[in-house]
Amino acid sequence: MKPFFAPLFEALHNHASSEPVSFHVPGHHNGEALKQSLGINDPIYNPFEYFHKLMQIDVTELSTTDDLHHPEASIKEAQQLAAKTFGAEETFFLVGGSTSGNIALLLALCEPDDMIIVQRNVHKSVLNGLRLAGARAVFLSPQIDVHSGLATIPSIEQVKEALILYPEAKAVFLSNPNYYGMGVKLGPYAQAVHDHHIPILVDEAHGAHYGFHPSFPRSALSEGVDAVVQSAHKTLPTLTMGALLHVQGDRIPIPSLRESLAMIQSSSPSFPILASIDISRAMIDTLGPALFEKSTASANAFRRWLREQSTTIRELNTVGDRGSELLIDPLRIVLYDSSGQRTGYELQKQFEQYGCFAEMADPRYVVLVFGIETSINDTQRLQKAVESFGNQNSGEKLAAKKQPDAMKVLALTSSEPVSFGRNLFNNQAKKRMPLEAAETKMSAEMVIPYPPGIAILYPGERISAEVIAQIQYLAENGAKFQGAEDVGMTTISVFE
Amino acid sequence: MKPFFAPLFEALHNHASSEPVSFHVPGHHNGEALKQSLGINDPIYNPFEYFHKLMQIDVTELSTTDDLHHPEASIKEAQQLAAKTFGAEETFFLVGGSTSGNIALLLALCEPDDMIIVQRNVHKSVLNGLRLAGARAVFLSPQIDVHSGLATIPSIEQVKEALILYPEAKAVFLSNPNYYGMGVKLGPYAQAVHDHHIPILVDEAHGAHYGFHPSFPRSALSEGVDAVVQSAHKTLPTLTMGALLHVQGDRIPIPSLRESLAMIQSSSPSFPILASIDISRAMIDTLGPALFEKSTASANAFRRWLREQSTTIRELNTVGDRGSELLIDPLRIVLYDSSGQRTGYELQKQFEQYGCFAEMADPRYVVLVFGIETSINDTQRLQKAVESFGNQNSGEKLAAKKQPDAMKVLALTSSEPVSFGRNLFNNQAKKRMPLEAAETKMSAEMVIPYPPGIAILYPGERISAEVIAQIQYLAENGAKFQGAEDVGMTTISVFE
Repeated sequence: MKPFFAPLFEALHNHASSEPVSFHVPGHHNGEALKQSLGINDPIYNPFEYFHKLMQIDVTELSTTDDLHHPEASIKEAQQLAAKTFGAEETFFLVGGSTSGNIALLLALCEPDDMIIVQRNVHKSVLNGLRLAGARAVFLSPQIDVHSGLATIPSIEQVKEALILYPEAKAVFLSNPNYYGMGVKLGPYAQAVHDHHIPILVDEAHGAHYGFHPSFPRSALSEGVDAVVQSAHKTLPTLTMGALLHVQGDRIPIPSLRESLAMIQSSSPSFPILASIDISRAMIDTLGPALFEKSTASANAFRRWLREQSTTIRELNTVGDRGSELLIDPLRIVLYDSSGQRTGYELQKQFEQYGCFAEMADPRYVVLVFGIETSINDTQRLQKAVESFGNQNSGEKLAAKKQPDAMKVLALTSSEPVSFGRNLFNNQAKKRMPLEAAETKMSAEMVIPYPPGIAILYPGERISAEVIAQIQYLAENGAKFQGAEDVGMTTISVFE
Repeated sequence: MKPFFAPLFEALHNHASSEPVSFHVPGHHNGEALKQSLGINDPIYNPFEYFHKLMQIDVTELSTTDDLHHPEASIKEAQQLAAKTFGAEETFFLVGGSTSGNIALLLALCEPDDMIIVQRNVHKSVLNGLRLAGARAVFLSPQIDVHSGLATIPSIEQVKEALILYPEAKAVFLSNPNYYGMGVKLGPYAQAVHDHHIPILVDEAHGAHYGFHPSFPRSALSEGVDAVVQSAHKTLPTLTMGALLHVQGDRIPIPSLRESLAMIQSSSPSFPILASIDISRAMIDTLGPALFEKSTASANAFRRWLREQSTTIRELNTVGDRGSELLIDPLRIVLYDSSGQRTGYELQKQFEQYGCFAEMADPRYVVLVFGIETSINDTQRLQKAVESFGNQNSGEKLAAKKQPDAMKVLALTSSEPVSFGRNLFNNQAKKRMPLEAAETKMSAEMVIPYPPGIAILYPGERISAEVIAQIQYLAENGAKFQGAEDVGMTTISVFE
């Protein structure tokens, strides 16, 4: 077994062990400041016990640590090790989530009015990167998986067609896998894009673990993608907001990227977040596929168990159930009620009664993410939750509620280039009006059901009847919306 | 004593205490994933003990928690309590440091080509906000404090003059206090700006504690400033990257600000960071000025001790030593060698030999930040470090090394408006050339000595002989530079 080596974490640990006195920020001074709360706390809870140890490595840029925006020592080494492990030529640790990676990439690549070919159902941070860059986007509608009704990624034919129609495009931006763990083989896409001598960029937020176990899909990097953004915090043992940006080849302007990363992220990046990325990489190096044995076993055990139950609760993405086109993340279990009686939100709520907290839900599905240490014990609680829905094998299937698919509406995308300009908020006259009556108007807001954080409307997009119906349906079923001012979504802001 | 109440922290603690099973991100699943490292670790260190407890509250947006970008429950409550404590009408918790607050403010306020009156020695994030917004800036040179040679803030006359010369300006952006704890009374500035019916914005990164102890200067909010950004993590017991953005009055476009904050920050904000802001505010509410008694006492004890020593090490900002113009942060102790023999960097290095880590150093000064729990014990180690310099009361004062002041060069700013346009990186022809020969050329890079993170050159700025000398001096003395590609700064990129 390769020795566990996490140089950034080690540097921080060594610093903390030397019992230094902090005359520097942050203000908790190695966690000492929280001791005061000990005297005043309700005995019910004590912040000190949660924070104290971590605060010992929550330091600033010191001679014994390094500087993310100017790495020369342990951060440099940690990033180089990660590049090796993930198969990149260069890897940047991020402290602002995949959001910061996506935005920085677009700022580095696009001058105002530059054109990017981008799939419509990208994370809102990609749209925001386009807005900040003042770029133009040719949106490609995602394919809809017939079996699930869920949107995946544009077809390779769509991409090739767009590349021919728009030779001035600077790059192609795709998102893979989707929130439900469904993805495609990216190699042919990379090939097609490279035939036009531009880079292919992939938001692989949900796939930081890809390639590290034989049952996982291959990583985007291994498929030849030029720049890949991964949310290490989603599927690796990394603190929230820890992410990775990998690059390879010579199509990405690295000096500009360094600058945009330093521009977009805090000048005081969090060392604990950075260290947790380093630790995650070290665990992969040391344990290899064994790191994911427990979780894959638990997920498969749950799958087998579920198939044997007399329940209308079914799993969507049964590995092996599909044609060879879609690649499924075995650690992501998507459930639904095949009788159509319960929405994904209702399933999610019921699971919480059993202490099982899902990743997200939509009108049909609930998404569960299995983690490295997810045990048989954990899955047993999940089983109890499923059993609580009872045995509804009455033979009588209720008509499934008519459930418009959010992602279907994204398939109606026009592929005319959209100019984001740079007038982010003001300038054009806007008015607020009832959503009901807003068909054919141009949205002045970005409307983002969250999760999954994919914009169902971006500023400047024409509002269709389907989108109105979808927003209303989501709102009725308790979905949350970001971006829009009227959280109930009965009204919307449009350009006059 | 008011009861300790931190609703966001409490919600997270309650969730963790319910022993939930995580089928959601982040991938450590309540810290369980790090257990694997226990088996493989060198017995020398164990990541689990540093991270495990905090990871229990590092969760995602759940029914029991809230959503920073759409707060309705505990985050909303925590922000409202903070607004009350700090004296704002509305307060936004930030997870991207003051960087995110500064950038979001400028994006919300500025359309491309809008003009902002801004002091030259602002943090680089303000310049970056202007660049991202494509705004124009009228730079005001800071006053130079004769006693210390350090730059503070433009005079009120300069501000008034600029307001008259540039009636189209959208806002005035100032930074106060500076890195050395030196600041001014902001009331008259707020008044002058409001006379022109535009907002005044202040980066108060180093002053989140202001107003909470009688010996501290008053806060910018209490002086009538419309929008204030504070790095809670610098001077309060908050995790790194935790910051605050406060607003009051009706001059700030709040809906645009909500949107720009959601745009710039991760869609997966860190709950531990948010909770630590909530805890800091709760500690202020419960303990009041008593929270800062220990640190102010320790700082004052150290000051008194230093004055009694026969050493050439002196403190710069002796509270009470100055005229009433400058307001000094009593928790920030700035030391220098009055014999001129040792640079601030050398003092910093020597302090580290005694386990005392300073906040930062420059060619003359070393800056120490005293924290809430800084004890007499801690200051005793500092005393030993000072004593190690020996008694150099030989009467013979060495000629102080000629030390150009970085901030002095910023006082040479022309006040012609500078247009940042939006061509961030490309488009214009650039070339790299020896710094030595770059006088009168226009810099194509942002050159940022870090700390303090203030740009000595921004893209488009004319390079003067004084700036060249200053960069060379800083580089010789081991200063770090961010932004520039040649880290040694012997060459620089200029526009042709």
